Amino acid sequence: MSGIVTLTTDFGARDGYVASMKGVILSLAPGTQIIDITHDVGPQAVLSGAFVFESAWRYFPDGTVHVVVVDPGVGTARRRITAAAGEHYFVGPDNGCLSALLPSASRGRREPGAGYRALAVEVPDGLITVAIENEAVFRGPVSATFEGRDVFAPAAAHLARGGDIEKLGPLVASMAAFPAFRAPSGPRGLDGRVVHVDRFGNLITDIEAGDLAPGATFRAGSRTISLSQTYGTASGLSAIVGSFGTVEIAMPNGSAAQVLGLGPGDRVVALSA
Amino acid sequence: MSGIVTLTTDFGARDGYVASMKGVILSLAPGTQIIDITHDVGPQAVLSGAFVFESAWRYFPDGTVHVVVVDPGVGTARRRITAAAGEHYFVGPDNGCLSALLPSASRGRREPGAGYRALAVEVPDGLITVAIENEAVFRGPVSATFEGRDVFAPAAAHLARGGDIEKLGPLVASMAAFPAFRAPSGPRGLDGRVVHVDRFGNLITDIEAGDLAPGATFRAGSRTISLSQTYGTASGLSAIVGSFGTVEIAMPNGSAAQVLGLGPGDRVVALSA
Amino acid sequence: MSGIVTLTTDFGARDGYVASMKGVILSLAPGTQIIDITHDVGPQAVLSGAFVFESAWRYFPDGTVHVVVVDPGVGTARRRITAAAGEHYFVGPDNGCLSALLPSASRGRREPGAGYRALAVEVPDGLITVAIENEAVFRGPVSATFEGRDVFAPAAAHLARGGDIEKLGPLVASMAAFPAFRAPSGPRGLDGRVVHVDRFGNLITDIEAGDLAPGATFRAGSRTISLSQTYGTASGLSAIVGSFGTVEIAMPNGSAAQVLGLGPGDRVVALSA
Repeated sequence: MSGIVTLTTDFGARDGYVASMKGVILSLAPGTQIIDITHDVGPQAVLSGAFVFESAWRYFPDGTVHVVVVDPGVGTARRRITAAAGEHYFVGPDNGCLSALLPSASRGRREPGAGYRALAVEVPDGLITVAIENEAVFRGPVSATFEGRDVFAPAAAHLARGGDIEKLGPLVASMAAFPAFRAPSGPRGLDGRVVHVDRFGNLITDIEAGDLAPGATFRAGSRTISLSQTYGTASGLSAIVGSFGTVEIAMPNGSAAQVLGLGPGDRVVALSA
Repeated sequence: MSGIVTLTTDFGARDGYVASMKGVILSLAPGTQIIDITHDVGPQAVLSGAFVFESAWRYFPDGTVHVVVVDPGVGTARRRITAAAGEHYFVGPDNGCLSALLPSASRGRREPGAGYRALAVEVPDGLITVAIENEAVFRGPVSATFEGRDVFAPAAAHLARGGDIEKLGPLVASMAAFPAFRAPSGPRGLDGRVVHVDRFGNLITDIEAGDLAPGATFRAGSRTISLSQTYGTASGLSAIVGSFGTVEIAMPNGSAAQVLGLGPGDRVVALSA
Repeated sequence: MSGIVTLTTDFGARDGYVASMKGVILSLAPGTQIIDITHDVGPQAVLSGAFVFESAWRYFPDGTVHVVVVDPGVGTARRRITAAAGEHYFVGPDNGCLSALLPSASRGRREPGAGYRALAVEVPDGLITVAIENEAVFRGPVSATFEGRDVFAPAAAHLARGGDIEKLGPLVASMAAFPAFRAPSGPRGLDGRVVHVDRFGNLITDIEAGDLAPGATFRAGSRTISLSQTYGTASGLSAIVGSFGTVEIAMPNGSAAQVLGLGPGDRVVALSA
């Protein structure tokens, strides 16, 4: 174990929610280093949370425990899961927010014209997925509205201490996941979607740089946009291959999201030349 | 000592204020693990800061030092205090923001019809409270506007290193505290107050679940609202017992604070059936 | 080395950018303690980032590595630099955001009537400055838009592990820096500028307390403002010597920036009595 636990939630920074989770983790696994990925996922925006988490987790060392809690269904019957994959550990509700732990091939592809929706996906061989059910590990009594503190934090501490993952509950064969974040080919070109709006107002899409035809241009809202090499050289709305390896629509010294009136789920099409 | 210091302030995340405090703590107590509870308390909103802190501190391990600085009176003659209670340590201005360290019984109850105001409260036996006055511990010269860095951070580092609390100044017999966050009975039912608006726009009240009569409904603004079991099952405005153990008014996929136009200090009454 | 790395960026808290940098640092330099100074510098606001960083870095222990990335020129030919000065280490783009590492005397003074602009400044004796060019240290392939993760984080980890600074690239004799943040004398008094707006809406200026004539008043927008001793005693717009040792224009329980309609770069003049 690396001694590190990361947290990704939509709890925000104004309240005591995140700190309560940290206190529980540090009480159960003293000396753990807790790193925030973000707590500013849009309220209950599972897709955006899944994307931001996917963009960051692989930079952490092996043996890290990742907790992702964006959970519109808290307190209902949806499962809680934990997984061990690629020397990393994952904890959260079974609603798609942990999609990143599955290889892209398992997650399948989005159909052109369809948006992103989390579906049950078979867990591939070599990846251990467990339903968190062992109440002996929970912080009791479990709050109906705050499983982050009472279920997920104790489960993460159990794993960070080197505890056996199978002690947390029974193995399961499937979990909820979004299709891989990679735009499919449609009739007019690559049928992309905005998957996240970053702090600068850049529209992050699922259009992979390697899938682009030479000379591709981009259609976003009513505008046609061409490709630039870097933010520094661009002027006006431009498409750029961003740090996620996908196309981003950017407005230098401004917000592409505001200029275009687009957000997560909206369409950006890569037109062939 | 746990080696942990928590910070709760209204300093925000945009400036260098919080980092300056952390630098001072790490210079004086190397290896300390510093955990943010929040720095987004409303500017000078002592009540809300006291509530958020109360909601989080008890999840940390014994031997933790908690610094709370929401301090409209910085630079004036108000006292600075530190306390040892229940194996935890507390540091901050003496204005009510550290109310949580006192047992509810010591803090008394709010009168029905009256709002929350911090008053001098006698410190009960077994709890050590000290006025921070020993300038040898300060980082000098003390800024008139930033005692967080120059007084409270050094005091916290002193305690985190295992220093004697009584070295920080003389024992005191009383401290400022808000009444316990528990709605009193009024003529129409429990006379509750909003004590915090969380990131989701939920109105957190001081109406304790255990005080509710069976079948109680809630009056907030001009609306009557009934009780739901979880956020997942609610539709429209609903009251729910939240993770603080008190009633919260929530709007699924929306903000109850916006819908109702209510905020901290405003009244929510629990009507008997 | 102190084992501490600080981060100052304009990446915000909503995305995975900052966490990616932290993951890279913790992978390359396990056990490093990473402290955020801020990630809420205005997008590409190099001046404000340089000021906030200058306000905080010196409170950290010797042997700390400071990473500052506010970088409108990411992906263009601007240099990346690292420096060792006064037992601290610094990493970032060569655009002025690291001005704080240079002594004020090297940075020169702003001309009255002129704004702040970063210029090439000769590096004084005893201070080591290196252009980061050794690709063997980078995380490859380097993203055109995210050198924070691929260049600056690995360089910081190299230093935090005690690596030789000169292994990162060749020594350089000059670097970009803003003039010292100290208002010059103009025809009407000290010709100050707002260098930052803090979370409370206070206008932080570059007018040093020690430069003030007795009885000075302040002209900001169309208002004349006099000096108060503390926030607690002020009522209405007032000037105060803040925790940076410079004059701040404050509005108790309000925002001076909003009331006056002023922001970074705008003029505040200290009029002699």
